[in-house]
Amino acid sequence: MRIIRLFQIKVAVIAILLGTVSCGQKTEAVAESQSGSEHPKLILTAQGVKDIRAQLGTIPIFDKTLEAVKAEVDAEIEAGIDVPIPKDYSGGYTHDRHKRNWFVLHKAGLLYQILDDEKYAKFVKDMLMEYEEMYKTLPLHPKTRSYARGKLFWQCLNDSNWLVYVSQAYDCIYNYLSEEERNKLETNLFRPFANHISIDSPQFYQRVHNHSTWGNAAVGMIGLVMDDQELIDRALYGIKDLKLDTEEKDDDGGFLNKDGKAGFLANIEEPFSPDGYYNEGPYYQRYAMYPFLIFAEGLHNVKPELKIFDYKEGVLLKSINALLNLSDADGEFFPLNDGQKGMSYYTGALVTAVDISYHFGDQDPGLLTIAEAQDRVLLDDSGLAVALGIKNNKAEPFNKKSINLSDGPKGTQGGVAILRNEAIELVFKYASQGSSHGHYDKLSYSLYEDGEEILQDYGLARFVNIEQKGGGNYLKENKTWAKQTIAHNTVVQNETSHFNGKYEIGSQHHSVLNYFSSENEKVQVASAKESNAYPGTEMLRTMAVVKDEDFEKPFMLDIMKVTSNKKNKYDFPYYFLGQVLQTNFEYQTPKSLNVLGNKNGYEHLFVEGIAKSPSKNSKLSWLNKGKFYTLTTITNNSDELLFTRIGANDPEFNLRREAAFMLRRKDTKNTLFVSAIEAHGSYSPVTESAVNSNSSIKELKVVLDTSDYTAVEITNVNGNTKLFITSNTNASKEAEHILKINNKNYTWKGSYYYN
Amino acid sequence: MRIIRLFQIKVAVIAILLGTVSCGQKTEAVAESQSGSEHPKLILTAQGVKDIRAQLGTIPIFDKTLEAVKAEVDAEIEAGIDVPIPKDYSGGYTHDRHKRNWFVLHKAGLLYQILDDEKYAKFVKDMLMEYEEMYKTLPLHPKTRSYARGKLFWQCLNDSNWLVYVSQAYDCIYNYLSEEERNKLETNLFRPFANHISIDSPQFYQRVHNHSTWGNAAVGMIGLVMDDQELIDRALYGIKDLKLDTEEKDDDGGFLNKDGKAGFLANIEEPFSPDGYYNEGPYYQRYAMYPFLIFAEGLHNVKPELKIFDYKEGVLLKSINALLNLSDADGEFFPLNDGQKGMSYYTGALVTAVDISYHFGDQDPGLLTIAEAQDRVLLDDSGLAVALGIKNNKAEPFNKKSINLSDGPKGTQGGVAILRNEAIELVFKYASQGSSHGHYDKLSYSLYEDGEEILQDYGLARFVNIEQKGGGNYLKENKTWAKQTIAHNTVVQNETSHFNGKYEIGSQHHSVLNYFSSENEKVQVASAKESNAYPGTEMLRTMAVVKDEDFEKPFMLDIMKVTSNKKNKYDFPYYFLGQVLQTNFEYQTPKSLNVLGNKNGYEHLFVEGIAKSPSKNSKLSWLNKGKFYTLTTITNNSDELLFTRIGANDPEFNLRREAAFMLRRKDTKNTLFVSAIEAHGSYSPVTESAVNSNSSIKELKVVLDTSDYTAVEITNVNGNTKLFITSNTNASKEAEHILKINNKNYTWKGSYYYN
Repeated sequence: MRIIRLFQIKVAVIAILLGTVSCGQKTEAVAESQSGSEHPKLILTAQGVKDIRAQLGTIPIFDKTLEAVKAEVDAEIEAGIDVPIPKDYSGGYTHDRHKRNWFVLHKAGLLYQILDDEKYAKFVKDMLMEYEEMYKTLPLHPKTRSYARGKLFWQCLNDSNWLVYVSQAYDCIYNYLSEEERNKLETNLFRPFANHISIDSPQFYQRVHNHSTWGNAAVGMIGLVMDDQELIDRALYGIKDLKLDTEEKDDDGGFLNKDGKAGFLANIEEPFSPDGYYNEGPYYQRYAMYPFLIFAEGLHNVKPELKIFDYKEGVLLKSINALLNLSDADGEFFPLNDGQKGMSYYTGALVTAVDISYHFGDQDPGLLTIAEAQDRVLLDDSGLAVALGIKNNKAEPFNKKSINLSDGPKGTQGGVAILRNEAIELVFKYASQGSSHGHYDKLSYSLYEDGEEILQDYGLARFVNIEQKGGGNYLKENKTWAKQTIAHNTVVQNETSHFNGKYEIGSQHHSVLNYFSSENEKVQVASAKESNAYPGTEMLRTMAVVKDEDFEKPFMLDIMKVTSNKKNKYDFPYYFLGQVLQTNFEYQTPKSLNVLGNKNGYEHLFVEGIAKSPSKNSKLSWLNKGKFYTLTTITNNSDELLFTRIGANDPEFNLRREAAFMLRRKDTKNTLFVSAIEAHGSYSPVTESAVNSNSSIKELKVVLDTSDYTAVEITNVNGNTKLFITSNTNASKEAEHILKINNKNYTWKGSYYYN
Repeated sequence: MRIIRLFQIKVAVIAILLGTVSCGQKTEAVAESQSGSEHPKLILTAQGVKDIRAQLGTIPIFDKTLEAVKAEVDAEIEAGIDVPIPKDYSGGYTHDRHKRNWFVLHKAGLLYQILDDEKYAKFVKDMLMEYEEMYKTLPLHPKTRSYARGKLFWQCLNDSNWLVYVSQAYDCIYNYLSEEERNKLETNLFRPFANHISIDSPQFYQRVHNHSTWGNAAVGMIGLVMDDQELIDRALYGIKDLKLDTEEKDDDGGFLNKDGKAGFLANIEEPFSPDGYYNEGPYYQRYAMYPFLIFAEGLHNVKPELKIFDYKEGVLLKSINALLNLSDADGEFFPLNDGQKGMSYYTGALVTAVDISYHFGDQDPGLLTIAEAQDRVLLDDSGLAVALGIKNNKAEPFNKKSINLSDGPKGTQGGVAILRNEAIELVFKYASQGSSHGHYDKLSYSLYEDGEEILQDYGLARFVNIEQKGGGNYLKENKTWAKQTIAHNTVVQNETSHFNGKYEIGSQHHSVLNYFSSENEKVQVASAKESNAYPGTEMLRTMAVVKDEDFEKPFMLDIMKVTSNKKNKYDFPYYFLGQVLQTNFEYQTPKSLNVLGNKNGYEHLFVEGIAKSPSKNSKLSWLNKGKFYTLTTITNNSDELLFTRIGANDPEFNLRREAAFMLRRKDTKNTLFVSAIEAHGSYSPVTESAVNSNSSIKELKVVLDTSDYTAVEITNVNGNTKLFITSNTNASKEAEHILKINNKNYTWKGSYYYN
């Protein structure tokens, strides 16, 4: 009961925010909308078609895309229509075929409009009629693994994908069809289809989740095309008057409709921070991006009075900028949470995002450079705008800078900071749990040089759409390894994961920013605190990327200050990639490899080497992809050093056999971990010459550590010493500090000192 | 005594072959040569300088190279001369500085000639004078590890490198110097230098080895510049009247001057087969290429009467073509023997090779395409020829085809076959031992798709020039792992390496070609026999790459027929790279990883998985770099299957942690291993779509196996069956065969049948 009440209040609030109407006034809103008779109107518009036809042949990137799409669709027409009875999981034939069909239908619809060639309309019509014929006979999909089974696909999610694309195809051939044909399709295919993924599947539809966003968009877009206000409302606000069991979970362990929020607007409101950060991380933002933007564009075109692109201070367009900034130098998204590596802004959804952002945003010329790299545009009004921009030489480089992205609907639930300097990128995560796709990785980070990982974030344990690997779905090692804290570059206390690896607890908390500073282009710093991951223990981590004239490249400085109410064992791993070159300590390598532990991810690590640390600094150098790297970390002589390798208890070879170096400090209450990572030099197997293969750091030393300040001296091999002081408490930009260290006074204003 | 006699006979024979003179007639030969007064004459010639100056500014690739070289040398002049007292191993400062100096001297010499700017001549002179000043005071290099210590460097090899380049620089500024200056340099630097690397270091100089080739070229080139016939003769024929202890070995375990052969001509005669294959393999050929070609060019220019490019039927130029064919689709050399991966035709020595081959060969337009990819040319006569060829649009693709390269001075000591079909390349090695850099890898192979390894050859265990890894030299794991048979994709008998891993035995033997067939562009086959690696056991391996319409890509078929006089244990590893996707058998993964064995390389393998094989075919699929692969191998149900990983007993992390799948057959006398490897489909992390991820082979089956024939049926998933029959004995192109299998008669002409 309480849930329903909240839900109704929410709807009213949203309607007011939108400056539109309360629930009771929907009929008037419809009257303000475009006429339903002019098609296409949803994404490609009648005016857009005119403009495109006028420019064809003079807009190279558009013309090229059109040619490729035409070749693809012509080949499909040649091959003939295939609408098989649904049978397979992802990666199987029927899955792949229906997936291909949705793309082909969409593209054929566009070609019909742009080229004015009826063969494309006929192809769309014929295939839709086959779907109509089949759909009305379909039971639930025979594969049972999903929490919400579809009909064409094993999960409603994919059915929704289908409808998002196919509603655009339908819009394109709407006027080509007779009323009778339209009635047939709408009655037997589209409405039942929309109902199945919504009313019949509330556990899928009625919540805040990227799956639901697809569902909402699917229902809304077909609603816009059919001018069906009930579906449009269901899309925007969720299923009316629905009660759900709030304790159910989805396949990934996420809550189903935790708090009654649902519908497209709630899916914008909740997961996006005011900075445009999407709480599940960039991999899922990328996935959700398409329905968010394409439905928004449809709403913008058909229901302009909703002002959807202004909603929540324009967060949809902001989110595109955030997402582009969450990619490395090669355009690959940082694999935060359950992110599959290699996904990049070359994916189709990002073509949509970039084109829409350019067209409906403020025509950022940097986006044109990305569009050029993507080498294709949308075949619609926004793609035309981008093509014209490129043609008119408006493209400028898209410069990614250091950026701090808040998390949470109001931007108050931690965030992600990216520090960039020259080719070095540091991704520091101090966000909230990240929904069901979140990892237990508070204050973790990953480090890149020129798009290559120096210290990796493992990403997810899944081979998306590769049927041989668990049907292409999440593997059990995703939970037992990839989500666990020990799989990340952060501190693990007593071999347990943050929040004991419990989603229910983790999702109640978030880390808190201490400060972020990127004004000084030589020194970029982010600092954040985590107080809930291990009750009774506080972790304050300050990470800097420093460009100093004594160093060839910017180096990373990492200060992790741990304060606890009891003695603990701390493990601090470094997931370096590449070949060990040198250490400044002796280590033993065991004859047989044994596991490091028996739970919380430790059961997946073999121990490959063991050492007692030297008393001041422990150093490890490695070589990866032609670059040298050195970790220098302050140790005491009761610290243990471990070399580990992923792959234990992995009975189906689901995990990559990658290494880590680990610092273990036992029986300690409060402590400080201070490390630097240098990228230096290069090696080419062609010239066989090794350049600057040695570390430039002679010593790292803590010269002060109080509750208010931590100060670290960095002495280079030539004996030059620099001092970094971070403010642990009073860290505002305006704060003025005076501090005496070794009888010398330091005064500065701001969050940190470096000199 | 006997050795000296042979050596003298050899010299006489060579002189006669060359159509020149016997030892006693040298003075006349000199009279035929170019005048010694015209400089430059060695590589860059006076005429070449005129031609280059006339074309400058109109030959883009030459102009661009010149600009880059000028910028580099100008920066060095700006930075000032540094000639430090020798101290370090490779990778250390003094090593790298002297190495850089030789390149800079050479380039500055060229710039002086081409740009006619005295500042470059002065720079060369000043630096040479510093070397003169220092060299006369130098003891042996302080580092003691080499079998032949240099003075500037820790090994004579690098001293020789220096002199090969610096003699060119000296030639360029010869006329700029006063006679007094020349006398000073020649007396205190060049002659003692040449003597140290030859007379004082016969264990380095006086043998057939790539090191000696550098030594010979160094002595010969400075001899040509100084017009010193004694040095020229020493270069061509070795040190006169020298007796060496034939039982000594070098650092790599190779013999020192095994049979008295020495000098540049012997170094052409012995290691090159008539096809141009260099017996140490492409990595060392690449290294030796520069002195071979640059000294040959010098001889061609200064002693044209020697007709050096016609020597041994033009083998030097042929060898360049062979070397280019020993590279993958990306131009990287196959890492046969001790080859470091990543070395490619982008290396400087191959710029020399390509330009010289074009200029002094028959102007193959395919070489121009490689030169374009190299994006630079030699700044001399041959570089000018290439630049003009490119400018005049003569470049055509360099098409690599299937090729069989014989090994041995007469081409009778086995060889290397490369089978190419579309993007698939199979490298099948049935060569001789390959000198001290050889591996115990009889009948081994590696497999590539589009330049990426499918089944790898491990290469060497060394990080060339990376000081932190054993001074950049061979690591002990090179011997204990990389050279061992188990490190290769071939059969291991009773856990021992071929020839018991003994170089003395291995270097007496070679495998023997059964047949090579590349006429049919759909079916390429190589077949060879090894009878000595395991006394009493004969191995006949037939490898085919087959393009069949039932398969997406060409597949590999591998038939290894083992005949023995006793029961043995056979291990048959497949060094696949990538992630295991699927098997058709159950396997167990141990909780702890133990080593597979205790010697012959087995001590470096951990066992990661164990299975009993199914009764007909065992299948393993994996994913690597976005491509799918499947191995299908015929097994019986007493075979064992193992997953192994490299890295055991590797106390300094010198080895890469890479996997293998291994078939183990125990207690068996004669046996047959039949396997197919398919490359199929693709996966993109951007589209997340998995295409053709399953094997197309339903079954492999042996339908006949006699001493004369082996016949294998390949049935694909649609039930289509093809038959491959290989002739084990009478395998000539002309042989006619009639064979009854399962009551059906097969008749064919040639080495194999496929249909």
